[in-house]
Amino acid sequence: MSSFSVPPPKCLQKPLAVPHRYMFGPGPSNVPSRILMAGINPVIGHMHPEIFEIMNDIKSGIQYMFQTQNNMTLAVSGTGHTAMECAIFNTVEPGDSVLSAVNGIWGERAADMAERIGARVNTIVAPPGGFFTNAEIEQALSKYRPVVLFLAHGESSTGVFKMQPSLLYNSYVMIHAYRYGCLLLVDSVASIGGTPLFMDQQGIDILYTGSQKVLNAPPGTAPISFSERACQKVFNRRTKPVSFFLDLSWLANYWGCDGKPSRVYHHTGPVTAFYSLRESLAVLAEEGLEKSCERHEKVAEYFHAGLESMGLKLFVKEKKARLPTVTTIVAPHGYDWKEITTYIMKTHNLEISGGLGPSVGLVLRVGLMGCNSTKDNVDMVLEALKDALKHCHKSKV
Amino acid sequence: MSSFSVPPPKCLQKPLAVPHRYMFGPGPSNVPSRILMAGINPVIGHMHPEIFEIMNDIKSGIQYMFQTQNNMTLAVSGTGHTAMECAIFNTVEPGDSVLSAVNGIWGERAADMAERIGARVNTIVAPPGGFFTNAEIEQALSKYRPVVLFLAHGESSTGVFKMQPSLLYNSYVMIHAYRYGCLLLVDSVASIGGTPLFMDQQGIDILYTGSQKVLNAPPGTAPISFSERACQKVFNRRTKPVSFFLDLSWLANYWGCDGKPSRVYHHTGPVTAFYSLRESLAVLAEEGLEKSCERHEKVAEYFHAGLESMGLKLFVKEKKARLPTVTTIVAPHGYDWKEITTYIMKTHNLEISGGLGPSVGLVLRVGLMGCNSTKDNVDMVLEALKDALKHCHKSKV
Repeated sequence: MSSFSVPPPKCLQKPLAVPHRYMFGPGPSNVPSRILMAGINPVIGHMHPEIFEIMNDIKSGIQYMFQTQNNMTLAVSGTGHTAMECAIFNTVEPGDSVLSAVNGIWGERAADMAERIGARVNTIVAPPGGFFTNAEIEQALSKYRPVVLFLAHGESSTGVFKMQPSLLYNSYVMIHAYRYGCLLLVDSVASIGGTPLFMDQQGIDILYTGSQKVLNAPPGTAPISFSERACQKVFNRRTKPVSFFLDLSWLANYWGCDGKPSRVYHHTGPVTAFYSLRESLAVLAEEGLEKSCERHEKVAEYFHAGLESMGLKLFVKEKKARLPTVTTIVAPHGYDWKEITTYIMKTHNLEISGGLGPSVGLVLRVGLMGCNSTKDNVDMVLEALKDALKHCHKSKV
Repeated sequence: MSSFSVPPPKCLQKPLAVPHRYMFGPGPSNVPSRILMAGINPVIGHMHPEIFEIMNDIKSGIQYMFQTQNNMTLAVSGTGHTAMECAIFNTVEPGDSVLSAVNGIWGERAADMAERIGARVNTIVAPPGGFFTNAEIEQALSKYRPVVLFLAHGESSTGVFKMQPSLLYNSYVMIHAYRYGCLLLVDSVASIGGTPLFMDQQGIDILYTGSQKVLNAPPGTAPISFSERACQKVFNRRTKPVSFFLDLSWLANYWGCDGKPSRVYHHTGPVTAFYSLRESLAVLAEEGLEKSCERHEKVAEYFHAGLESMGLKLFVKEKKARLPTVTTIVAPHGYDWKEITTYIMKTHNLEISGGLGPSVGLVLRVGLMGCNSTKDNVDMVLEALKDALKHCHKSKV
């Protein structure tokens, strides 16, 4: 006969304790109490009419944020990586050619995901902090004839956005892509809402982001949208996507995007996370997308000027290619970057971070996103950096 | 030049409004304010030492709930379906033989998931409300030699648990499974915490559940655990799992289960959902697993007696095979089940639900899980059912 032999853990007797902290890394950002509080509304069913209405509101909010009329617009029940897999799992079949433009960690991860499901993956690679010319992209498109081209708009690991600043506005690349039947898949996790992006006008076929960056919602939901052209590919596949959970035909029904009269149980949506996501989209709509972008850009300029006047160097050389949401600073010469971030966390209760993937050891990263993007916060970060440079050891190397 | 052409949606100007409701369906359950409130603690980084400590506490809490010493114990950043895919994606490779015991929707979905990744899937099927004999399972094991056998402990679509009441206690099946190198994968989303289950003593190799049932946390996280034997299979694969997001080698590192000295960025964990999950595990540890199971069983007995004294019939004939968490009632003859659930929602502000998958049209389902499992709530449901039977139309059919 079986019996209870594992005792209740003592650690759970201590009450939960979470520190307050300035979240000025590349994300998650601070969540204003209005958005946190939305999440303590009572749990209702994932198939109740009231949650469908909330999901419809979320859909409208994402269409606004993405500047798209796409009907196939929804939030994935997961973080940015889940949305990334949702995009790739649904649009790519085994044997398909995929091109990933790698100028940081996101292009690497997209390539990894596509390889896992049996795609033939090719990459073009730019050094961290760099980006591609249109000619490079066009050449690769014509060489590899991919069904999907992955681009990171807002490469948060290096602080670069608009990988080739004119690309997304440049009909050349789009015409090339269209000619080869290629879908444009764009990651805007760290950029959208803080810098202008126009899904429809820029011909983006699949666009996704996360809840925890400019939106200032807790991590756990990820807005995504598919163009008509992307849906054509998705709904005419020869094979089922590898994931039932991320299968767009199921998600489309759950989000009321497939025109069917009733919704069928797919999975239990994280309803309280949806409450917070809706609230965060309402905050964005109240300020207005244009104003939000202007604010992020002004604050970033002010921040970048402050950094340069301190003698620090920005990692992304071309001014126009700098992300206004996540700033990469060349790791100050002679210092151990980790000592700086640790000092600032300890002394100023403030998170800034080191590099990620290809930028590890090369940079410090500061994210000022959504409600965190203010001049007061810039002043706070600059003070903290000055203080750290004064107090951290200069290494002998 | 692109411009902002999609205006902010009017629907987001209305404040979020969510009704209070008795959540007595098969889940999500009501979330007590203590657990909801845990979720409004400030967001910290997904790689901060404080969140690692919270994750360690969660790990201990799951080990307790699952009655396991498995080191490879963690919570997936998603709902029950994500955990299901995590289990299957990591243990099954293309071409592997998988056996799914189907006596409701969960066996069907497990089979679907395994098929999508190229497994050779076989099923044994019992009618809704039924289960299997040990001989049936053993015969199928010896015939198909699966690498994974899927069983639902707590088939919430039909109200059955212990699919073959003695199975999990019966060393015959385990010995058979071990002989063929088969892993036992068990879904306990709707049962664990409300009925005894002993992962280690019962020889279960992979066990998972959801946060939104007996645990009474919001949906969005899913506890899972892998035995040493399961890890042997997972970490000696020939191919990478199809999902980067659910790749156990990455998750193991993020949860500190791989013995490596430092954790590498994998994905942004839903930190506020982790706060609530930790709190829900603390509540369970405070009451004690044994007491919680006893309470669920007593309340279920009281409920079942009340239903029978009203003249209603329980769908699962064998008393010992009835889930104490989710009760299935034979849809009353001559009534439209949907009219009953709609009436009760409208008049009593109380959710009970119809069938799911193979049980659609056959049953009413009532879930009393975690804090909802009380005699007072039983009385409330019985009153609501009496009232509905009085007021709903009897059809002529």
